[in-house]
Amino acid sequence: MPDPRFFSVAGPFSLQEVAEISRAELGKGADPEIVISDVAPLDEAGPGEISFLDNKLYLSLFTESRAGVCLVDPGLASKASSHMTLLLTKEPCHGFARVADAFYPEPAPEPATAPSASVSDRAAIGEGCRIEPGVVIGAGAEIGRRCRIGANTVIGGGVVLGDDCRIGPSVTLSYLIAGSRVIIHPGVRIGQDGFGFALGEKQHIKVPQLGRVRIGDDVEIGANTTIDRGAASDTVIGGGCKIDNLVQIGHNVRLGRNCVVVSQVGISGSTMIGDSVMLGGQVGLAGHLRIGDGVRIAARGGVMRDIDAGTTVGGFPAVPMREWLRGVAFIKRMSKR
Amino acid sequence: MPDPRFFSVAGPFSLQEVAEISRAELGKGADPEIVISDVAPLDEAGPGEISFLDNKLYLSLFTESRAGVCLVDPGLASKASSHMTLLLTKEPCHGFARVADAFYPEPAPEPATAPSASVSDRAAIGEGCRIEPGVVIGAGAEIGRRCRIGANTVIGGGVVLGDDCRIGPSVTLSYLIAGSRVIIHPGVRIGQDGFGFALGEKQHIKVPQLGRVRIGDDVEIGANTTIDRGAASDTVIGGGCKIDNLVQIGHNVRLGRNCVVVSQVGISGSTMIGDSVMLGGQVGLAGHLRIGDGVRIAARGGVMRDIDAGTTVGGFPAVPMREWLRGVAFIKRMSKR
Amino acid sequence: MPDPRFFSVAGPFSLQEVAEISRAELGKGADPEIVISDVAPLDEAGPGEISFLDNKLYLSLFTESRAGVCLVDPGLASKASSHMTLLLTKEPCHGFARVADAFYPEPAPEPATAPSASVSDRAAIGEGCRIEPGVVIGAGAEIGRRCRIGANTVIGGGVVLGDDCRIGPSVTLSYLIAGSRVIIHPGVRIGQDGFGFALGEKQHIKVPQLGRVRIGDDVEIGANTTIDRGAASDTVIGGGCKIDNLVQIGHNVRLGRNCVVVSQVGISGSTMIGDSVMLGGQVGLAGHLRIGDGVRIAARGGVMRDIDAGTTVGGFPAVPMREWLRGVAFIKRMSKR
Repeated sequence: MPDPRFFSVAGPFSLQEVAEISRAELGKGADPEIVISDVAPLDEAGPGEISFLDNKLYLSLFTESRAGVCLVDPGLASKASSHMTLLLTKEPCHGFARVADAFYPEPAPEPATAPSASVSDRAAIGEGCRIEPGVVIGAGAEIGRRCRIGANTVIGGGVVLGDDCRIGPSVTLSYLIAGSRVIIHPGVRIGQDGFGFALGEKQHIKVPQLGRVRIGDDVEIGANTTIDRGAASDTVIGGGCKIDNLVQIGHNVRLGRNCVVVSQVGISGSTMIGDSVMLGGQVGLAGHLRIGDGVRIAARGGVMRDIDAGTTVGGFPAVPMREWLRGVAFIKRMSKR
Repeated sequence: MPDPRFFSVAGPFSLQEVAEISRAELGKGADPEIVISDVAPLDEAGPGEISFLDNKLYLSLFTESRAGVCLVDPGLASKASSHMTLLLTKEPCHGFARVADAFYPEPAPEPATAPSASVSDRAAIGEGCRIEPGVVIGAGAEIGRRCRIGANTVIGGGVVLGDDCRIGPSVTLSYLIAGSRVIIHPGVRIGQDGFGFALGEKQHIKVPQLGRVRIGDDVEIGANTTIDRGAASDTVIGGGCKIDNLVQIGHNVRLGRNCVVVSQVGISGSTMIGDSVMLGGQVGLAGHLRIGDGVRIAARGGVMRDIDAGTTVGGFPAVPMREWLRGVAFIKRMSKR
Repeated sequence: MPDPRFFSVAGPFSLQEVAEISRAELGKGADPEIVISDVAPLDEAGPGEISFLDNKLYLSLFTESRAGVCLVDPGLASKASSHMTLLLTKEPCHGFARVADAFYPEPAPEPATAPSASVSDRAAIGEGCRIEPGVVIGAGAEIGRRCRIGANTVIGGGVVLGDDCRIGPSVTLSYLIAGSRVIIHPGVRIGQDGFGFALGEKQHIKVPQLGRVRIGDDVEIGANTTIDRGAASDTVIGGGCKIDNLVQIGHNVRLGRNCVVVSQVGISGSTMIGDSVMLGGQVGLAGHLRIGDGVRIAARGGVMRDIDAGTTVGGFPAVPMREWLRGVAFIKRMSKR
């Protein structure tokens, strides 16, 4: 079970309640009155706990698990041991996410402003916000309701945050207009100057960066990620995007809605990315590209050209997945000769 | 136009003034008395505004633009619509940088030291500096005139900064001797221990890192970039270098003057780099290499050997550009069979 | 010699003392009473100073060096100039590390808690700790003895640190149980939410991250590196691991003991890594892999499969080193045709 040093568990819940929370069906012979006291991974869960199977890689852990209850795809139900109660769903991970959130809900922030925070008289702070020690908020900033601003975070003048945002410690936000329920992890840098220079032989002249960053609702941004503001128009992160740690997003980039950007990706300036695009870890994109909706780029792919909607690509320079794998197989054969 | 929430516009300027600022010639029939009130990108600019064309990719935006005035290469002047006034220059981006700087000059810092800053009695702070809340400055540090030190930045004992430096929030500087007009964006880490160990089977022994970091004038360093101090001699960043976000520079590296280092580049320890070298995004260099003046390494290139001055290389392991492209074309052919 | 602005030298030591510290033998005819006043690199050392040769690349520097004393492998002793006194050891770098540490010992922290620090009444701080300005420590945290907590660092509730830890400025630690003598450089982020979502077409549902981070004794972690806490079980960094700057370690990763992870490496979630594994710069590992003890992955290698203990691999997708080099040579031949 999660370490009580760090986590407080809610519940318990009955199997019936958990089935409703997880949007799953009770397995054959399941008793809806069973009491579930916690969530746990397959290899640690005990009789009163619920786990889930989402990756066939872990099928043997599932079969051997002592978990009392498990969320599982109906097609894998027959692999369970007889002692296990099943909750059947096509989306066990979604179900588990909902159950785990019921057992470990994110607590509302306790409203307070630390005495060591420096909040401008001309900033507007919504009701129910928690402003932790060492926070600095500039003139003209507008923070929505029930936001949590982590210790030593610096929010520049004019920045706008919607309601229920959770900003980690040691973040810097500037030139930013953000929506609601945005989660920003520690060390994120948003809104600093883009990398814009008129290059010259003797010196490079700085081009003033006069745009902003706009972030939609329900975006999450990982630790130490950097997002530069636009040079002239804005850098835009569409609603629902999930961005991992140590990602670089250059000036004027536009990410559509619900994109997933894994860690250490770099997106060069002015590249336009559609909705529901998936970028694997360490992917790099050149500047001024257009990437269509639903594109998937395998980890470490290096993209030098536009990509049509719906395409999956990999390798460097990135090509359609099948072509990349064929090239890899060819080199493998040649290098074994 | 830039959001007045964040930016204050200077001006207006006459076309004559703007021509002088941008070092451009008035196009045929241009009226030097025209009033220009702002800068804007091609697709947003209106009649009283000035824009520029620097990348042929955007030629159609240029042709369709409603901008009153545009900086453009004389060779492309004929593509302009008839309503547009032209300013002709071989370097439209340089011209625009100067004009944008005239409309949006970086304001001088308002001198002040925040009460929550912890500045050592034994630090020397030049006149006209702005020390924001939560800043910590150690004994023996020397800060030049008119520097801006962003909130919650930590400057270690003995660090030297020249005049007119602009240090962002949440930066850490230690063991550093820096010149004037240095710009450091948020979250940059300079001067921490290099990655030096005497490796062993049972344990790795830490090698004390006894060098410094030296940074020349007019250097700009992007957000969350890390520059380790030297192990014995110094890590050196030559004057005029422009370094993007999330770059790693190892101990004892020497960068010459006016280099451009795009984001997520990694330069391993003790590599020596000449003047005016360009490193594309996500490039990696092994340690102990010598890279000549004027070398260009295409994005994602991985360099394992010394490179002669003036060469352009790409790929991994990096080879001359033409050879790399030929190899890519060869694999492409083979993988389509 | 190291800049006295930043470093205070101990000593001097006699050659006999230095031989004992470095565990080296006196070279032929060496006078044990010689006085050594400092350490220095080969090209800067003078008559009263000690240097070392560990990389044949620098053999000519060795031959030409003015260093009074040098640590060197017995096999290279004949290359020394006649004025140089030699200390012979199979491990000159280890010897030098010990000598440099004797001349420049890490000073014990001066115990103090800065008035601007916000330390919870319910945190337990060991004796001899130094808590610098702007530090924030939450309820239930336990800090060992003689720890140094750098300015503006934020330590969340419940975090445990052992004795003699050295935490740099602007670090954030949460959900962490760490051992003794852990060194954490500035800007490191430990314990934030892992990148866990149940992905969906219309929205991605956040999966609560309910694990911790556990770090063994004698671990060092470089600037701006990010280590996410586990999703359910813990993220674990084994004792003695040395991790460089800007590394990403995903949730549930387990690193064995004494691993070396060079900068900008990315390790995806749930990958299990054995003891004494070496990961070169910019290496990437997919998730859910098993990497055996003693594996070495060359810089920029991209690993998509499990790797057996003791193997050295390189390239992307990573293959055994010899196979990779053969593939590279093959493409080189083809691209020169």
